[in-house]
Amino acid sequence: MRVRKRKGAEELLAENPQIVVPEATGTAYKGRWRELFGNDHPIHIEIGMGKGSFITGMAQAHPEINYVGVEMQVSVVSHALDKVLEKELDNVKLLHMDGSALTEYFADSEVDQIYLNFSDPWPKKRHEKRRLTSPGFLAVDEAILKPAGEIHFKTDNQGLFEYSLASFSQYGMILQKVWLDLHNSDFEGNIMTEYEEKFSSRGQRIYRVEARFADKREKA
Amino acid sequence: MRVRKRKGAEELLAENPQIVVPEATGTAYKGRWRELFGNDHPIHIEIGMGKGSFITGMAQAHPEINYVGVEMQVSVVSHALDKVLEKELDNVKLLHMDGSALTEYFADSEVDQIYLNFSDPWPKKRHEKRRLTSPGFLAVDEAILKPAGEIHFKTDNQGLFEYSLASFSQYGMILQKVWLDLHNSDFEGNIMTEYEEKFSSRGQRIYRVEARFADKREKA
Repeated sequence: MRVRKRKGAEELLAENPQIVVPEATGTAYKGRWRELFGNDHPIHIEIGMGKGSFITGMAQAHPEINYVGVEMQVSVVSHALDKVLEKELDNVKLLHMDGSALTEYFADSEVDQIYLNFSDPWPKKRHEKRRLTSPGFLAVDEAILKPAGEIHFKTDNQGLFEYSLASFSQYGMILQKVWLDLHNSDFEGNIMTEYEEKFSSRGQRIYRVEARFADKREKA
Repeated sequence: MRVRKRKGAEELLAENPQIVVPEATGTAYKGRWRELFGNDHPIHIEIGMGKGSFITGMAQAHPEINYVGVEMQVSVVSHALDKVLEKELDNVKLLHMDGSALTEYFADSEVDQIYLNFSDPWPKKRHEKRRLTSPGFLAVDEAILKPAGEIHFKTDNQGLFEYSLASFSQYGMILQKVWLDLHNSDFEGNIMTEYEEKFSSRGQRIYRVEARFADKREKA
């Protein structure tokens, strides 16, 4: 997500250690996120949370779930932080990380669900490996997710969605449900991201899929 | 496919036994289709061929492949027969069958590829079992297809396509490639069906997927 650099963003993050887990110390919570939240609720993470509309909306709607928003850019994290503070949410942490593998930050099977929303499409074939739904990233997701864990993915990008359906399937994931026009469907409780507001208001279709990994215990 | 009843259709079929395999004798060719074609070329079948635009177009474009068009309605088969005769194709047979399982007509692994085009969507949940992409039909397809055999499916029906992607995946099939707007894609060599001409001319999207079964030999 491209955003203007925000003055004082780094300071804002540093002033809120109860919400923002900085990249330097984030790895210290590997295997200890439930401890950090202070309860045993399921942990759902959003990879590339943008300005936080989705994750804070979800956290409001589902107080029984803990959310971790993962994001690389300081200014972007600071906008999400604004929302967490404003909504006074105690079930959201923001992980400001540098783009190294999530296996550095989360232990095996520590995460209950992963959200990918409007990920960068990287349309060029030679950039396939950068897409968050490519096999390399899926292997990391599978490692940190509990057995048969799910990825819920939405995008307005037709090419990325076509690619992702095949990529999930070829990785061995099971497609549980597919929406080819989310905003004209019977899906309930949709929380929009900033991108989604923008693109759907222009009449663009939003695609969505829920996919799960094969149960590692079945495989073994 | 709904078509007007055609007078003399049954007689037309009966007069062309070199092309039309009638339901009464169709089972006699189980395991012997290569013999009937008189060569060892791969066998591709279209289930529900309609008036035959697709299968005869494919047969013209791919003389090295044998095609069997499967269809239940006499009048519909007769229109396809017109096209086979007109184009003087020797690599197409039309199987007029009554809707019993294809395992009655084809032996295990006898078929190289299956086409499903614009199949009846049966949108009501209680009619799910009638959809040609539901598990019951997929089991039959898997039986008659060679190991790792493919289904190529296209439709304009969004609901059926959403259902089918999940159904294929949940059956254990692998989605090889997905098109969410076939007519605005780089897909080459598309042969249109009668429905496809009609719906795409109205600006409706055509969806397409190529999916393959897991290799039965891998499973064993």
